[in-house]
Amino acid sequence: MERQRILCVGLVCLDIVSVVDKYPEEDSDSRCVSQRWQRGGNASNSCTVLSLLGAPCSFMGSLSAGPVADFILEDFQRFCIDVSLVSEHAQCASPASVVISNTSSGSRTILHTNRNLPDVTADDFSKVDLRQYKWIHWEGRNADEQVKMIERVMMHNSKLPPQQQITISVEIEKTREPLYQLFPLADVVFISKDVARHFGFHSAEAALRGLYSRVKPGAVLLCAWAEKGAEALGPDGMLIHSDAFPPEALVDTLGAGDTFNAAVIYKLSRGEHLKDAVTFGCRVAGRKCGFHGYEGLRAQFSNE
Amino acid sequence: MERQRILCVGLVCLDIVSVVDKYPEEDSDSRCVSQRWQRGGNASNSCTVLSLLGAPCSFMGSLSAGPVADFILEDFQRFCIDVSLVSEHAQCASPASVVISNTSSGSRTILHTNRNLPDVTADDFSKVDLRQYKWIHWEGRNADEQVKMIERVMMHNSKLPPQQQITISVEIEKTREPLYQLFPLADVVFISKDVARHFGFHSAEAALRGLYSRVKPGAVLLCAWAEKGAEALGPDGMLIHSDAFPPEALVDTLGAGDTFNAAVIYKLSRGEHLKDAVTFGCRVAGRKCGFHGYEGLRAQFSNE
Repeated sequence: MERQRILCVGLVCLDIVSVVDKYPEEDSDSRCVSQRWQRGGNASNSCTVLSLLGAPCSFMGSLSAGPVADFILEDFQRFCIDVSLVSEHAQCASPASVVISNTSSGSRTILHTNRNLPDVTADDFSKVDLRQYKWIHWEGRNADEQVKMIERVMMHNSKLPPQQQITISVEIEKTREPLYQLFPLADVVFISKDVARHFGFHSAEAALRGLYSRVKPGAVLLCAWAEKGAEALGPDGMLIHSDAFPPEALVDTLGAGDTFNAAVIYKLSRGEHLKDAVTFGCRVAGRKCGFHGYEGLRAQFSNE
Repeated sequence: MERQRILCVGLVCLDIVSVVDKYPEEDSDSRCVSQRWQRGGNASNSCTVLSLLGAPCSFMGSLSAGPVADFILEDFQRFCIDVSLVSEHAQCASPASVVISNTSSGSRTILHTNRNLPDVTADDFSKVDLRQYKWIHWEGRNADEQVKMIERVMMHNSKLPPQQQITISVEIEKTREPLYQLFPLADVVFISKDVARHFGFHSAEAALRGLYSRVKPGAVLLCAWAEKGAEALGPDGMLIHSDAFPPEALVDTLGAGDTFNAAVIYKLSRGEHLKDAVTFGCRVAGRKCGFHGYEGLRAQFSNE
């Protein structure tokens, strides 16, 4: 039988990262140390890491036409990520996020743009051949539509024996009320530090204990907390912790959370234990912070 | 006989302009009001304006390969600017200037990048078929090479009757010593407010009187001074002034100087009087400041 793929549904965008050694004063003219263009977006970043770890994966999201889209598609290709489910919207503009990365302070200042690109709809998703996937991950965005997509997968799963069912994961990163309806729908739920705090929790442990009642029976809830590592809570009620694995020098934290998610999904999708998955997530995310972008991950973890 | 073209030699780059209503604080996440991608660079901007005014023109400069180059070439095409003299350097990166344009304060904060693109050389220029051009304009950059290019044109001119000679213009915008060797080589010399100040002059008039001895006999020296308008000095020693023509609301001053240069070249290349050329330069540049980019100039001045 063909090895099945992992599908990530969410955002892809272009990040234009200008590296400076001093944050520019208003109205000044200055020269940056370096500049790089990088494919960004949570689901898109997670695909990159999954692919570098050796998992065949697909990205589903929307894209404009034009030079930015060309750059993004080329980059997906470079990382062997399947883009057959990407929909192009020729009439939409090609915005980019401008990131000013200050190497002296470690700060990152981000100027987002308004994307006029429509998110993936339940109708788009109805055309996906679910038999190709063993795992589908959603970056929480247009939750009302995403609920319908997940319900389609649950319906599909209900007709199959457990070992053939698709595992459903969601990331709830933004503190927006509609996203919280995703909690009870997934087998694996990733929440951010922001979401934990939004619910009044001051640690990952407290957040997982406090929010576990929102997930469905048998589900796993995870929360990464930067330099404090990550926690996970499964159906057995045992809290699992991994320390962070900081690199010798912190170079680039952009996408560290997406890296954690991907590494956890990678391990769990191969049937490994939650403890090993969380530790692996922290190790890969920590390693990623030691260099710019993701290329540095290539081959480092390919035998694990 | 075929109508001859105007050639501009200099820089083209990509300007990514993020419009904000508040300058971003360091380490913040914010959303910009709008973002636009714009072909930039002085010589490239002047070509845009020449073309919009109805003058057939060509751009000569270097370009990388990749999506930025594609965007730039497409934009040149949109403005009917000939790019047959553009050299592509496939091995070079595609940097972009990041511009944060604050609508509340009118400030523009610019983050330049290091271009690893070689400038046009005298050797590149030796292949240009000079018979196609009635006017060649240089944006002062790699002056040592540009001197050789101009000498080639002077040699070419020396064999022709005056009415068939190519008019030579240069822009000296940056305050870099090597650029000042361009003063005595051109028929028309544009200097910036920065250059005037660098020589210790506090007005365009003082700068022109003080620097006229540097240009060759018979040449015209011009200096635009933002909201104070512009001055020109020709061989008759008569100082010519035009007031500025500010728009109702100042929207976008990026490229206003390049617009002035192009409009002056346009009029002089059609044999019109210096006085009319300077006034026209101020009118077109003022109009340009009333909207974003250049498209707004289309057709406005086509009958003049």
